[in-house]
Amino acid sequence: MNNFQFYNPTKIIFGKGQVEKVGKEVSDYGKNILLTYGGGSIKKFGLYDRVISSLKERNLNIFELGGIKSNPRLSSVQKGVKICKENNIDFILAVGGGSTIDASKAISVGYYHQGDLWEMIENDGEFKKGIPLGTILTLAATGSEMNANAVITNWDKKEKKAIHGSKYPDFSILDPENTYSVPKDYTVFGIVDIAAHVFEQYFSHTESTNLVDSWAEDILKNLIKNSSLVLKDPKDYEARADIMLAGTMALNGLIGMGKEQDWASHAIEHAVSAVYDIPHGAGLSIIFPNWMKYVLDEGKEKFVQYGVQVFDINPEGKSDKEIASKAILETRKWFNNMDAPATLNYYDISRDDLELMAEKAVENGEIGSYKKLNKDDVLKILEMSYE
Amino acid sequence: MNNFQFYNPTKIIFGKGQVEKVGKEVSDYGKNILLTYGGGSIKKFGLYDRVISSLKERNLNIFELGGIKSNPRLSSVQKGVKICKENNIDFILAVGGGSTIDASKAISVGYYHQGDLWEMIENDGEFKKGIPLGTILTLAATGSEMNANAVITNWDKKEKKAIHGSKYPDFSILDPENTYSVPKDYTVFGIVDIAAHVFEQYFSHTESTNLVDSWAEDILKNLIKNSSLVLKDPKDYEARADIMLAGTMALNGLIGMGKEQDWASHAIEHAVSAVYDIPHGAGLSIIFPNWMKYVLDEGKEKFVQYGVQVFDINPEGKSDKEIASKAILETRKWFNNMDAPATLNYYDISRDDLELMAEKAVENGEIGSYKKLNKDDVLKILEMSYE
Repeated sequence: MNNFQFYNPTKIIFGKGQVEKVGKEVSDYGKNILLTYGGGSIKKFGLYDRVISSLKERNLNIFELGGIKSNPRLSSVQKGVKICKENNIDFILAVGGGSTIDASKAISVGYYHQGDLWEMIENDGEFKKGIPLGTILTLAATGSEMNANAVITNWDKKEKKAIHGSKYPDFSILDPENTYSVPKDYTVFGIVDIAAHVFEQYFSHTESTNLVDSWAEDILKNLIKNSSLVLKDPKDYEARADIMLAGTMALNGLIGMGKEQDWASHAIEHAVSAVYDIPHGAGLSIIFPNWMKYVLDEGKEKFVQYGVQVFDINPEGKSDKEIASKAILETRKWFNNMDAPATLNYYDISRDDLELMAEKAVENGEIGSYKKLNKDDVLKILEMSYE
Repeated sequence: MNNFQFYNPTKIIFGKGQVEKVGKEVSDYGKNILLTYGGGSIKKFGLYDRVISSLKERNLNIFELGGIKSNPRLSSVQKGVKICKENNIDFILAVGGGSTIDASKAISVGYYHQGDLWEMIENDGEFKKGIPLGTILTLAATGSEMNANAVITNWDKKEKKAIHGSKYPDFSILDPENTYSVPKDYTVFGIVDIAAHVFEQYFSHTESTNLVDSWAEDILKNLIKNSSLVLKDPKDYEARADIMLAGTMALNGLIGMGKEQDWASHAIEHAVSAVYDIPHGAGLSIIFPNWMKYVLDEGKEKFVQYGVQVFDINPEGKSDKEIASKAILETRKWFNNMDAPATLNYYDISRDDLELMAEKAVENGEIGSYKKLNKDDVLKILEMSYE
């Protein structure tokens, strides 16, 4: 186990009917609230009205920034910071998925930033201060509800950048019922995203990390089981709850404790979706099993462990290579069974753009740690991602 | 899964050589430091000198409260509060095990309490404020390094009481090497205490708690494996590290998320050790397997799951009762293999005092939730705890 620090001050408020607590939670922080949200589904399904009503009970002043898109744009961040400055915003309440939350984190710290906001994001520096922030999560996926990461896209530059020490939400309200209305494809992309976060931390050469590794395996087994339940019945409360909890626990620091981590597949996916605006989870579904194949020879043992523990592969009479390859195949099968995309063809992504994407993925140097990847490696993984 | 809240703002600084960071961490909080510790082993093994030297590098003013005993006394809390008031203490640094940390938490909140300190502890109210607190852990056991609980004993009244919302440590430094010098018996008591914390949360009638249950099982499997390693070689770093991490994760709120919990065995043990000053982990070792036998018929399924998952019991051809009983037997065997005490005879505890202990255990009403226990139930469990 490596030395590590773990710190996560976000308060999780989990379960049915917790949304009505939001007014009370927010009112501790001040009067002027910036409510951020996405494309309007929160209005369609009544969540918007419930939130507004809880805030109004406490006589809070509500300002709004709606229309935050997936792969959230720098322009939304700029708009948000402007609203905060003009209205002395005391608290930002993000109602939505990872994109809304990520944009809100960037607004929270951007408010205190002197100078250009895109430079702030590119530099990914140390953020000393942010406007207090709460979230009401509507999509189990990014884990953004319990970490200080945010990914922002600059469409003018076709760049997608992550900041890592921005603002932990002060609280996050996680009501699994708020995910009932998520369409099938986005439910699946969310599940793939969660699995990918586990993979990025699980596949590591650090030794003696048994406890967090078994926790990671549990999250994956839990996801596999509940993904089939939720696709059968989108209103299966316990399955939605398990997936939501898994999503939060997959990227709040816990299962990465004491481990070197990888994150190459995320870097590749970010490069892809900076050029083609595809859903993050879809990109990960395409890329991750190919990353697995590509890096396998750097250490089969971990893939053997993955296969045996997560997919119950019986190791008897099989070579490490056979077990590991079967584990990767099972991963692809799981994604296929959920109808998650398997190839870049699915989104008509041109081979002509692979060079650009590979360049973007490694623009700050080699990526990954299970195997360090240079531009050629990334190109090969992208080329493996075609039919 | 039940609705729940999870909040834990303690920063964990884990690993070799982290003690030297303490001066820097503390200096963020002010100049006047109260250093609390126990019986002097930290002086014997050089930890005291390392801490003092790191604090002095930052020119901090150090006040001391040593001699805090296990089952920490109200008198230590009173002394500590007095020192804080007389010296404008900005920060309390607890160097030791659960007892030193618990006493320090009570000092931290006691400083702001108007009125009698024992009343404060008996009332276990809401604590709004505490003096900032850091810990350097020297014993893997209570989990106090990452929660807001504290157990304090009033010897005049023979009462042992727990407060639950006192003060989360602002940081806790966990260097597994600081546990190398813990003697065998206390290493074992610590392991039993950790296991007991898992049991209290694991054995529950709440349904659909798969993720946290498998996490709890992982902690137990990890403990069983590492307990035999550490008893062979007390300086096995990875084994000490795994046990230390397990201890922290067992009682920081994680594995209790969304579950009704039990805690009857702890209430019984507290009643025993309020009358006889025996180590907490030793008392739990005696009582817990008997509690298991006593409550088994309230729900064998969970004990079956425990046996199959944690002890790899092959369920084929066995009744639930047989599997569950074997699981309890394996628990006792594990404790026996570590030479943890199995009976109250071991400490010459008189049967004449059982009545008093049973009364104390239920003085606020029935205890537990897997099976609600009244005074007669507690008496029976205590009587089962003799040879």
